[in-house]
Amino acid sequence: MPTPIIFDTDPGVDDAQAIAIALAHPDIELLGLTTTFGNVTIEVATHNALLLAELAGQSIPVAQGAAGPLVKPKNPPPGHIHGDNGLGNIELPQVTTQALKQSAAQFIVDQVNARPGEVVLVAVGPLGNLAAALQLDPTLVDKVKRVVVMGGSIREGGNVTPVAEANIFNDPHAAARVLQADWPLTLVGLDATHRCVLDPQSMAQIVEAQGQLGKVLGESYAFYRAFYQQALGIDGCCPHDSCALVWLMRPDLFRVERGYLSVVTDGLAEGQTLMAPERREFVDPRWSQGNVAEVCMNADGPGVIDWIVDTLVTPPAR
Amino acid sequence: MPTPIIFDTDPGVDDAQAIAIALAHPDIELLGLTTTFGNVTIEVATHNALLLAELAGQSIPVAQGAAGPLVKPKNPPPGHIHGDNGLGNIELPQVTTQALKQSAAQFIVDQVNARPGEVVLVAVGPLGNLAAALQLDPTLVDKVKRVVVMGGSIREGGNVTPVAEANIFNDPHAAARVLQADWPLTLVGLDATHRCVLDPQSMAQIVEAQGQLGKVLGESYAFYRAFYQQALGIDGCCPHDSCALVWLMRPDLFRVERGYLSVVTDGLAEGQTLMAPERREFVDPRWSQGNVAEVCMNADGPGVIDWIVDTLVTPPAR
Repeated sequence: MPTPIIFDTDPGVDDAQAIAIALAHPDIELLGLTTTFGNVTIEVATHNALLLAELAGQSIPVAQGAAGPLVKPKNPPPGHIHGDNGLGNIELPQVTTQALKQSAAQFIVDQVNARPGEVVLVAVGPLGNLAAALQLDPTLVDKVKRVVVMGGSIREGGNVTPVAEANIFNDPHAAARVLQADWPLTLVGLDATHRCVLDPQSMAQIVEAQGQLGKVLGESYAFYRAFYQQALGIDGCCPHDSCALVWLMRPDLFRVERGYLSVVTDGLAEGQTLMAPERREFVDPRWSQGNVAEVCMNADGPGVIDWIVDTLVTPPAR
Repeated sequence: MPTPIIFDTDPGVDDAQAIAIALAHPDIELLGLTTTFGNVTIEVATHNALLLAELAGQSIPVAQGAAGPLVKPKNPPPGHIHGDNGLGNIELPQVTTQALKQSAAQFIVDQVNARPGEVVLVAVGPLGNLAAALQLDPTLVDKVKRVVVMGGSIREGGNVTPVAEANIFNDPHAAARVLQADWPLTLVGLDATHRCVLDPQSMAQIVEAQGQLGKVLGESYAFYRAFYQQALGIDGCCPHDSCALVWLMRPDLFRVERGYLSVVTDGLAEGQTLMAPERREFVDPRWSQGNVAEVCMNADGPGVIDWIVDTLVTPPAR
């Protein structure tokens, strides 16, 4: 039986690839896309979610969510990374479908309650929608199958501050709520995603195989790749958001440690995720509260890339 | 010409070994020991500094300093690591010498002003004495040759919290003052010291060669080693404080990155050191202020251990 997921996203070039995977893989049942601000504004995120499903020829519900952070002021979206339209500023086809009337948080609550114990929430943007869903229905913690979050960095350092990863930095208060909630959670952060670099040749194969959707993935990838080249000196891109789905399908490609998570909400380390390994004692117990999460500390980078390319080029039979 | 240093210390088992190195190496001129609370109370720190110099048969000035942190409340010293007497709770010989009348901070100010441009401050405990010296004489920043700090952790994780190293956590406000001062500074933190493990066989050689001082080093080492075995599952100890002197004498054994340092003083990440690499841009410039420091990000562990053993077993001729 395929795993039913809700994919919470701020598309975003690497989000677009992950959405393509969720749409293509026969072992994933994509219940819906919920959108958040982050890489782009909420309006652009919703537009792109609708567009990507249309281009793949699938009818997938899209529910719009958080337009900004819970508490802190909103930063402008990083147009230099994903383009102002989230897809590398390429010209995009018209969208003919519409988002649902219900909010992202309500959609999550309804879907999880309809299939208790079955649904996996995969969140690859700031975590406001998941925090809002917990606010609407705290019993979700016992009803989701698992929460998989692309975000954070334990040992790897940050990508928007010396210690903070962008998704967590964009809404640290929501992240604190979500990462410390009493539900089964896996964190797929920069410690794993930075081990994975999608090269231009692999991307060309994906473009070739993915038709109309491939055209958009390829053109937006070119913009994102230019950022990686200029800012980081890498020819290729880290497929951050896809890694969350790779973990779901192929956890054997990751090295996981178990620990207590917490999130710094203010000050110089704002947006940092801290992990206190299970059974390790520190100077006081404040870092070892709540639920133990699974945290990806490393990944088999080439194995992850091969899985992504295989999935998008020669998807397993449905 | 030997390098004149002031060694600021909270002895402490690994401090004791570093003091033995400073006393033994012909390329180091030990101007004095300044003491601080940290591994032990200030009274114990001063007692042990006097004792270690006496056992080595040398007359070295000792100036007592900070009894506690600048701002935060004082934690009790970690008796389970260094013993309540700082030297593994072994029976210690009587001390016959006395500390100077002047404070550690005043001693630092006087010595540096007497030899401008020559003196290296090597600090291996909480940084209150250096902060106090800067308060007495802000011109020190232009008069020290360099400041070498054993403390902090950039990528390695912490040893007293998930992200903080003990020296910085014990007085984060002093550390913020010292690590951001406009003087040439090298940070030798856990990213480097955790690569270096002194095994029991090497320690036995040191004990054999170091006479009366060796006896104390060996017996205290046994206590410290038991902590490492129980808490970390390692047979051997990281010679944290000695690494600061190894860097001074053999910088080629370390991999250094250049960056701006800052210190978190409050909250979950209290005591964390952050490094913003030089020429790397983040979401805003708050992490890239002030002076660029040299930060040890890795070490040739076996090379460091060999150098320590050589220095204490067959010291180069004076």
